[in-house]
Amino acid sequence: MTPLAMLDYASVLVFALTGALVASRAQLDIVGFCFMACLTALGGGTMRDLLLDREVLWIGNPAYLAVASAAAVTVFFGAHLLESRMRAILWLDAAALSFAVPAGAGIAYGAGLGWPLVLVMGVMTGCLGGLMRDVVANEVPLLLKQGEPYATCALIGAGALLLAEGTDMLPGRGALIGAIITFVARAGTLAFGWQLPVYKSRPPRS
Amino acid sequence: MTPLAMLDYASVLVFALTGALVASRAQLDIVGFCFMACLTALGGGTMRDLLLDREVLWIGNPAYLAVASAAAVTVFFGAHLLESRMRAILWLDAAALSFAVPAGAGIAYGAGLGWPLVLVMGVMTGCLGGLMRDVVANEVPLLLKQGEPYATCALIGAGALLLAEGTDMLPGRGALIGAIITFVARAGTLAFGWQLPVYKSRPPRS
Amino acid sequence: MTPLAMLDYASVLVFALTGALVASRAQLDIVGFCFMACLTALGGGTMRDLLLDREVLWIGNPAYLAVASAAAVTVFFGAHLLESRMRAILWLDAAALSFAVPAGAGIAYGAGLGWPLVLVMGVMTGCLGGLMRDVVANEVPLLLKQGEPYATCALIGAGALLLAEGTDMLPGRGALIGAIITFVARAGTLAFGWQLPVYKSRPPRS
Repeated sequence: MTPLAMLDYASVLVFALTGALVASRAQLDIVGFCFMACLTALGGGTMRDLLLDREVLWIGNPAYLAVASAAAVTVFFGAHLLESRMRAILWLDAAALSFAVPAGAGIAYGAGLGWPLVLVMGVMTGCLGGLMRDVVANEVPLLLKQGEPYATCALIGAGALLLAEGTDMLPGRGALIGAIITFVARAGTLAFGWQLPVYKSRPPRS
Repeated sequence: MTPLAMLDYASVLVFALTGALVASRAQLDIVGFCFMACLTALGGGTMRDLLLDREVLWIGNPAYLAVASAAAVTVFFGAHLLESRMRAILWLDAAALSFAVPAGAGIAYGAGLGWPLVLVMGVMTGCLGGLMRDVVANEVPLLLKQGEPYATCALIGAGALLLAEGTDMLPGRGALIGAIITFVARAGTLAFGWQLPVYKSRPPRS
Repeated sequence: MTPLAMLDYASVLVFALTGALVASRAQLDIVGFCFMACLTALGGGTMRDLLLDREVLWIGNPAYLAVASAAAVTVFFGAHLLESRMRAILWLDAAALSFAVPAGAGIAYGAGLGWPLVLVMGVMTGCLGGLMRDVVANEVPLLLKQGEPYATCALIGAGALLLAEGTDMLPGRGALIGAIITFVARAGTLAFGWQLPVYKSRPPRS
C-alpha cells in the first residue's frame, strides 16, 4: 500500500467516526450510523473523483465502504464510553482533515495538475465530507463557525505538500509533511485559538 | 417498457408529488413547484448515474422532466383538496421509496456490480432525492428523524432484491420483491412504529 | 473571448461577490471568504458540466478560481464601505443570475440539446450556485423565499434566449437578449414585487 493510499484509508476511518458520532447525537439506528459515516468519510473524495473524471474511489474499491461501516458499528456500541462527544468529534475531525488534505492534494499533484488545482483538491477533499455531514445534520458547518479557520488549515496543509514536493526540498515526503502541518495548524486552532484576522462587521446584519 | 423502467418512472412521478407538496408548504409559484419536484424526483437517480459514469437519466430522456413537471402542476392546482399535506408527503414518500430502491439496486445488479454496490445504489437512489428536498427546504431530513428508520427500509428492500436475484429463488422478480418489501417495511414504520434499536444517549448534548 | 465566455466570467465574478458577502456576515477569515466565493461562483457551472459530461470549467481553466478569489479579497477589505450588505447581496445576485442563465442555456443550445434541456441548464447554472451558498450558510435559500420568484426569472431568461435563437428572429444575439430579460424580470421582482400567483394554503402546516 502506498503512503497516499494509507492516508486515504486513515481519513475514511476517522471521518467515519465523526459521522457516526453525529448520528449518535441524532439517536439514529445502526443503518443511519452507517449512512452518516459513509457520507462524511467518502463525500469529499467522491466529489474530487467526479470533478477529475476518475473512477470514484469506493466504486472501484468497495473496501472503503467496509472501513466506514466498521467505524460506524464501533461508535454505535462504544460511543457511550466517551465523556464528551462534541469534543471527540472536533479532535477526530482534526485528525481526519490531516489525512484527507494531503491525500487529495497528493492525487492532484501526482496527476500533474497545476498548483491552483492541487490546493483546491486538497481543501475540497478535506472539507467537503464534513460539510455534507453538517449540512445534512442541519448544524452550522464547522467551516462557517466563527473563530474556526477550518478551510485555512486545509489550505496551509495543501500548500506545505506543494512546497515540499515542488521545491525538491523533501521529494516523496510531501504527503507526510502535509499531514503534519495540517494537524499542527488545526490543533493550534482548537487548543490555542490560533486564527487569521477575521472580517469584523460593525453593525448587526441588515 | 421494462419493469425497471416502469419503476423508475413511477418513483419519479411520486417523488415529484412530495417535492411539490413541500413547495406548497413554502408557498412558491408554479416554477418553484416544478423546481422542487424535479430536484426531489431526479436527485437520487442523477447521483447514481454520475457515480456509475452512465448518461444521466433525464439528459438522455427528457420525458422524466415532463413527468415531474406534470406532477408539480397537479399539486399546484390540487393540493388544497388534501386534508393533511404532511401525512400525504409521508405516505407518498413511502411509495416513491418503494419504487426507487429496486430501480437503483436493479440497475447496479444488471450492470454486474458486486453486492455492496448494489445495496449502496439502492439506498442512494431511494434516499438522496428526498434528502435534497429536505435540505433545500431547510427541514430536518426524514432520514435523520428519530424513530424514522428511513435508510433501514431502503437497505432491507435492496437486500430483498439481491436475495431474490442472487439465489435464483425468484429470478427476474427481484425488482417486484424489492418494491414490496421496501413498502411493507416503510409502511410498518409509519403505521406501527417499527424500528431497530436506536442509539440511546444518556446525558444531553455536550 | 466569445460573448458566452464573457458572460461566464461576469457571472463568476458577481456571484463570487455575493458568496464573499455571505462570508462577511458569518465573520470568516480570508480563506473562508475565498471558499464561499468559489462555491457560489462555480457551483452552478460545475453541476452543469458534470451533468453534460464536459470538462469542469475551472479544472480546464483555473483562471476562474483566480477571478472568484480576487472578488473575495475585494469584499474582505471593502465590505465595510457598503451600507446594507443584504441589499447588496440581492442586487448583485440579480446581476449574476442575468449573466449565468444565458451562459448555461447558451452552452446547452450550442451543444445541440433539445429545448427542455436548454431551459433546465439555464435555470440550473443560474440557481445552483446561490442555492449552495444559502444551504451551506444555513439560511433559507432565496429560491424558496415567498414572494421571490427566483427560478421563474431564470426560466424566463432561458426561454428568451431560446426564442431569439430558435426562431431566427435575432440569431447570435440570444445570449444578450437572455441576459437583459433575466435582469429585467429579477429587478422587477426586487423593486416592484412582480410575481406569478403563488400557492395559497388555507390552514397552517399540519
